[in-house]
Amino acid sequence: MATTDRSDLSRLRERAPLVLNITNHVVMNSTANALLAIGASPVMAHAIEEIEDMVDLAQALVLNIGTLNAEWIESMFKAGRRARQRRVPIVLDPVGAGATRYRTATARQLLQELKPEVVRGNASEIAALLGDHGTTKGVDNMLALEQGAAAARALARSTGCTVSISGPVDVIVTGADEVRVHNGHPWMAQVTGMGCTSTAITGGFLAVCARPHEAAVRSALVMGVAGDLAAARARGPGSFQAEFLDRLSELRDDDLLTLGKLGAVQG
Amino acid sequence: MATTDRSDLSRLRERAPLVLNITNHVVMNSTANALLAIGASPVMAHAIEEIEDMVDLAQALVLNIGTLNAEWIESMFKAGRRARQRRVPIVLDPVGAGATRYRTATARQLLQELKPEVVRGNASEIAALLGDHGTTKGVDNMLALEQGAAAARALARSTGCTVSISGPVDVIVTGADEVRVHNGHPWMAQVTGMGCTSTAITGGFLAVCARPHEAAVRSALVMGVAGDLAAARARGPGSFQAEFLDRLSELRDDDLLTLGKLGAVQG
Amino acid sequence: MATTDRSDLSRLRERAPLVLNITNHVVMNSTANALLAIGASPVMAHAIEEIEDMVDLAQALVLNIGTLNAEWIESMFKAGRRARQRRVPIVLDPVGAGATRYRTATARQLLQELKPEVVRGNASEIAALLGDHGTTKGVDNMLALEQGAAAARALARSTGCTVSISGPVDVIVTGADEVRVHNGHPWMAQVTGMGCTSTAITGGFLAVCARPHEAAVRSALVMGVAGDLAAARARGPGSFQAEFLDRLSELRDDDLLTLGKLGAVQG
Repeated sequence: MATTDRSDLSRLRERAPLVLNITNHVVMNSTANALLAIGASPVMAHAIEEIEDMVDLAQALVLNIGTLNAEWIESMFKAGRRARQRRVPIVLDPVGAGATRYRTATARQLLQELKPEVVRGNASEIAALLGDHGTTKGVDNMLALEQGAAAARALARSTGCTVSISGPVDVIVTGADEVRVHNGHPWMAQVTGMGCTSTAITGGFLAVCARPHEAAVRSALVMGVAGDLAAARARGPGSFQAEFLDRLSELRDDDLLTLGKLGAVQG
Repeated sequence: MATTDRSDLSRLRERAPLVLNITNHVVMNSTANALLAIGASPVMAHAIEEIEDMVDLAQALVLNIGTLNAEWIESMFKAGRRARQRRVPIVLDPVGAGATRYRTATARQLLQELKPEVVRGNASEIAALLGDHGTTKGVDNMLALEQGAAAARALARSTGCTVSISGPVDVIVTGADEVRVHNGHPWMAQVTGMGCTSTAITGGFLAVCARPHEAAVRSALVMGVAGDLAAARARGPGSFQAEFLDRLSELRDDDLLTLGKLGAVQG
Repeated sequence: MATTDRSDLSRLRERAPLVLNITNHVVMNSTANALLAIGASPVMAHAIEEIEDMVDLAQALVLNIGTLNAEWIESMFKAGRRARQRRVPIVLDPVGAGATRYRTATARQLLQELKPEVVRGNASEIAALLGDHGTTKGVDNMLALEQGAAAARALARSTGCTVSISGPVDVIVTGADEVRVHNGHPWMAQVTGMGCTSTAITGGFLAVCARPHEAAVRSALVMGVAGDLAAARARGPGSFQAEFLDRLSELRDDDLLTLGKLGAVQG
């Protein structure tokens, strides 16, 4: 089980790491705001002409294929290769893998070539990366928890990455380590891009955590605890969005310790 | 006059139809959130490589030219042709038609080739599709109500589509059927993309309604009633946005019956 | 010191100038909403095929390189040249200048060729346009106030543009005129795109103010005063966003006079 280092969030706020995002059109604004609220410095960029220069400034790289096209994917590979050279950690969000052959193939190529520290997705996306061609209904379908956990274990084993699955229960797997996070609220599935936000915040923690596993767990805890706190004050998925950012910006290390519902599982 | 089938909204929530959007950069986030709040499953995608695969998963296709360029338009045509083959209903939002020749020509080509079930726009956009070259001031100009209604009737007659005009009073025309919806609040014109949201929600209802006319009327009612409810609790166009999503997510069939201000007009 | 013409905001609301934005993906929604809230008519467009037609309809042009790529830059130049022919005022936001060579070079070329009425950025971006290769940490780094003011003076002198720097204290320089605005709240740095919003609103005022300097000062005052008012009612950066739009939409000329904290400085 991951040790909960109470200083991770404080360090993120102190260092304000620059997190470079090549991400989708739907969530650029909301994930930038979430990164700011948690204390990171977001940059969104995709031009092939500048992407290596941007990587050189970054402490983490977020790759998200939500509205992929050929041009953006080329920039993702170029950014990713540079990140590997410069030891900049990468988190990959294979949005919609399994929904179309293009997404599945692209996500697999990014995974194989770039070997990101963390892959974060929902259960069906992670299953699709394994070659498990289940029926994916768009980008928000959820396999049952244990099926998802099994897929996460298999993908973590075959790739060496940390695999993080978001859902009513989050599952984070690295090698034989498996942690579950039981925080969060159903409204989070009614707000577009909450998974993408988790991926972006994972990028923030990758910049300050010693191990990718810790970064993925910390991000799941931050999302879940902020989600719980926001849901307690919101009146629906619209007001939830504002409350979520307000709570993120106030969140402290102690909140993760006292409110986080962490569970360990034998791998 | 359209019969008000009280089960349409419930069926939308039960089925959570996948609504594929090729839409503009400005509203991707807000329309995805509105589709989630009403109970649909939004997907935003535009890559030519995957757009047919996406259509194969979709129950409705939303085409919105708000930030069009050549690449996205090509994907709209490809998606639209596939949708016609697969009997996936289409709603077209000719954003800014009349403002530039490129928009007007593109919107007309999409209309002629794809024959969408519904065209939803403001009065000046609908007039522009008819070849009525009035002065369009950008994308939010409003012709007088009766001029708009006349344009809607003419376009409905010449194309066979359902034509839906949003404004202080919404006008929905299919052949000889004409319905008006008198709900809504001026703040809706102070929030970008409320028309685009109406188009997207029309896509959601096209997936569950027997007739396009019903889908367009239901969408106008949902927008207007949720707008009335949100405005009663908001303090300006900013808080209105959150309230609108909160109210959308709570809206029930009964609310449309009791709060909807429907009027019929002889065609 | 700039005279405070109490009718500028009222005139903006009356005329509702069409402000054409070629801007970045992150802020399209939020800046469109801010322009609507202050009373302007925003249009977001970028297709090379239509950009000149759009300029012909516009009363101001906003160029923002936040998520630049080759295609969008080409449209910026084409739009800018047309704007010069048609005497449409231009405001340039050199987002991230100094962060990458591509951004710095692009921003300089736009500045040199198009001679925008106003350049609005943060201190490090303005310094980068001067050829001062300081260390820029992404797009939100702040040089000290007096360094920024010196850079603004130098750039204003060498280009003839009005230069507007946003920060805890805003500095607006035109020739020998220098004005500082002391309004605003730290939450504004925790919301993505508040600088871009200031740029867009500057575009709105350029359409109704006699001099670019007045437009830049008015925009800084509007941002700062609305920010102060919003912060007083918000509980964090999330609720701040909604409050900010609510306050923008209610703001009156008198508010700028009574709440604006203007300071003049010898140039």
